[in-house]
Amino acid sequence: MLLNDISDLIERLKKRGARRIALQFPEGLKRRSAEIVASLKDAGFEVMVSGDPCYGACDLALETLRSADVLVHFGHAPVDEQPGVIFEPWDVAFDIGVLENALPFIRRTTVGLVTTVQHVNMIPAMITFLQSRGITCNVAEGSQRTPFRGQVLGCSFAAARASGADEILFVGTGLFHPTGIAIATGARVIALDPLAGTAQEVRGDTLMRRRFAVIEKARGARTVGIIVSTKSGQQRKELARHLAGLSKDAVIVIMREVNPGELLNLGFACYVNTACPRLAYDDQVRFPVPVLSPQEFEILCGTRTWEDYAIDEIV
Amino acid sequence: MLLNDISDLIERLKKRGARRIALQFPEGLKRRSAEIVASLKDAGFEVMVSGDPCYGACDLALETLRSADVLVHFGHAPVDEQPGVIFEPWDVAFDIGVLENALPFIRRTTVGLVTTVQHVNMIPAMITFLQSRGITCNVAEGSQRTPFRGQVLGCSFAAARASGADEILFVGTGLFHPTGIAIATGARVIALDPLAGTAQEVRGDTLMRRRFAVIEKARGARTVGIIVSTKSGQQRKELARHLAGLSKDAVIVIMREVNPGELLNLGFACYVNTACPRLAYDDQVRFPVPVLSPQEFEILCGTRTWEDYAIDEIV
Repeated sequence: MLLNDISDLIERLKKRGARRIALQFPEGLKRRSAEIVASLKDAGFEVMVSGDPCYGACDLALETLRSADVLVHFGHAPVDEQPGVIFEPWDVAFDIGVLENALPFIRRTTVGLVTTVQHVNMIPAMITFLQSRGITCNVAEGSQRTPFRGQVLGCSFAAARASGADEILFVGTGLFHPTGIAIATGARVIALDPLAGTAQEVRGDTLMRRRFAVIEKARGARTVGIIVSTKSGQQRKELARHLAGLSKDAVIVIMREVNPGELLNLGFACYVNTACPRLAYDDQVRFPVPVLSPQEFEILCGTRTWEDYAIDEIV
Repeated sequence: MLLNDISDLIERLKKRGARRIALQFPEGLKRRSAEIVASLKDAGFEVMVSGDPCYGACDLALETLRSADVLVHFGHAPVDEQPGVIFEPWDVAFDIGVLENALPFIRRTTVGLVTTVQHVNMIPAMITFLQSRGITCNVAEGSQRTPFRGQVLGCSFAAARASGADEILFVGTGLFHPTGIAIATGARVIALDPLAGTAQEVRGDTLMRRRFAVIEKARGARTVGIIVSTKSGQQRKELARHLAGLSKDAVIVIMREVNPGELLNLGFACYVNTACPRLAYDDQVRFPVPVLSPQEFEILCGTRTWEDYAIDEIV
C-alpha cells in the first residue's frame, strides 16, 4: 500500500513544483520515516523530517515551512485549512467479517456508524455488511475538524451526534472515543476493535464518576494554571481568557507538550486544560494535581451545574 | 533579593508601557512563578506564564509574544538580541571564604577566572579575595553569547580562552563546564563548587575517551539524522546543511526537545546534534543510539582528523 501512496505523493509534489519537502509522522508511523525519506530523495527532492512528538493533525510542524516548500503530514486528515500542508491519511484495512462480533450487542435495526480516520475507507464495506444483516447505517457528516463522513476524533464527536441514532457503533481502537460519544450523545454505544476483534457496550458513567472526584479534589486550590496550547489546531485562547476570568487565582500557562514533569515544576495546585481534551480525561493518573476540563472548571466556579456536565470538544 | 528585583522589574515594565506580560522561568525557578505572577497582577499587569521546559536564554518562549507585549525571561543573560524580551538574571551569592578550598589546587600566581551567570555578581569579591592570597585573576570578555566578563556557558568557553591563562579557575556547579574548558583551552582547570564547597582539578581526557568510543559505535550506521533545533538560540541550519552534505545517508531532523523517546521512535541508527552541544556529551547514556557532535561526525566522515578533535561551541 505504502509504495503506491508514495508514487502518488511524488506526482503531487512535482505538480506543485515543490523541491524541499518536510515530513511529519505520528508516533506509530515515525519508524517508517527513513524508508520514505529514501524514496523521496531518490525522486530528487531535498527532504527533512520533523522529530517532535505528534498525535494528530492538530499538531502540525508548521515551523518546518521556514525551511521547506511543503509539509507532508502522514496519518491524519486535516482539522483545519493550512497552506503549504499536504495530508496523507494512512488507511488501515481489516477483515470485514470482524463486524460479526458486534452483532450480538446491536439491538436496533438502524445504527449510527462512526470510525477513526485510518478506517474511513472501510465505511462502504461496513455499510454493505451490516445491511446484509438487516441493519441500516446512518453515516453522517461531522464538523469541519472531521472531513470524512462518519469520522470522529477524540475532540470531535459531531458525526456521532449528527447520525441522530440512539444506538451507535464505533469501529476503532481504545475506549476513549466510544466513552466520549456516549457522554456527548446520550446514545447507547457499541465499540468494536476491528484489529483485536473485541466488541463491547461502552458507557460514560465510570468516566463521569472519576471526573466528579477530580473536580472535588480541585476545590480549595489556591493557584490555577489555565493551559493554552501553542499547537496549530489546539489553540483556544478565547476560551482560556474566559476561564481565567472566572477566578482571581487563575493565570494562563502557555505550553506545547502538556506533561506531568512540567506541571509539577510549575507548581500550580490545579490546572485547566484547553489543549487536546483527551489530556485531562486520559492522563489524570499521570498528573501530580487535578487537571480539569473547561466545563469542569465552570462547575467548580459555580457558573455551570453538575447536571449540565458536557464532554469537552473542540469546535 | 527577589522582592527588590520585582519592584525594579515593575518600574521597567511600566516605563515600556507594557500591559500584558509573559514570564519564562528555567526549571529550577519555575516553582516561584505563582508568587511572581501574584506580585505582577497586584501591580496591575495581565500576566501569563510559559510552561515549556527551559534550560537557557537559547530557549526563549518567543511564541508568547503573540499574546503578550513583553516576555520576561528569568535566570539567564541574553545569548542574542531579541526584541520584546527582558532578561532578569537570578543572582546566587555564596560565602567568599569558600574560595579557600580551591587554593591548594592552584599552582600559578595568575589564573583565568570564569563562572556561570548566577555568580558573575561575585566576580569582584572573588578577585579581591584571591588578590589577598597573592593570586592575580584574568577576567576576560567572552563572546556575544556571554555578555558578562568572565561568564561561560555550556556552549561557549570564549571567556576562558580569552583569559590567556594556562591555569583556569571555574567557580560553579557541575563538571560539564570545567571539562569543556579543559578541552577548549588545553589549560589546567580547577573547578570549585561554591555551594558544596568542593574543589578539584578537572581534565578532558575521560570525556574524550568516551566520545571516541561513541564515534566508533556510529561507524556503519546506515541512517543518520542531523538534528536541527527550533529553539531561538540553538538553530544552526547552515552547519546542519554542511553536515547533511557529508553523507548520502544523512537527513535533517527538525525538533524542539531532543529526547530519547523521540530519537527511538524516529528509528535512525545514529544522530548528529547541532542543537545544545551539551545534549550529545551529557545525555549519551540516555540515548538509544550514538548522538555525535558536529566535529565528531566530521571525524566519522573523514573530513576532520582525530588530532583536530574540538569541543562543540555555538559562536
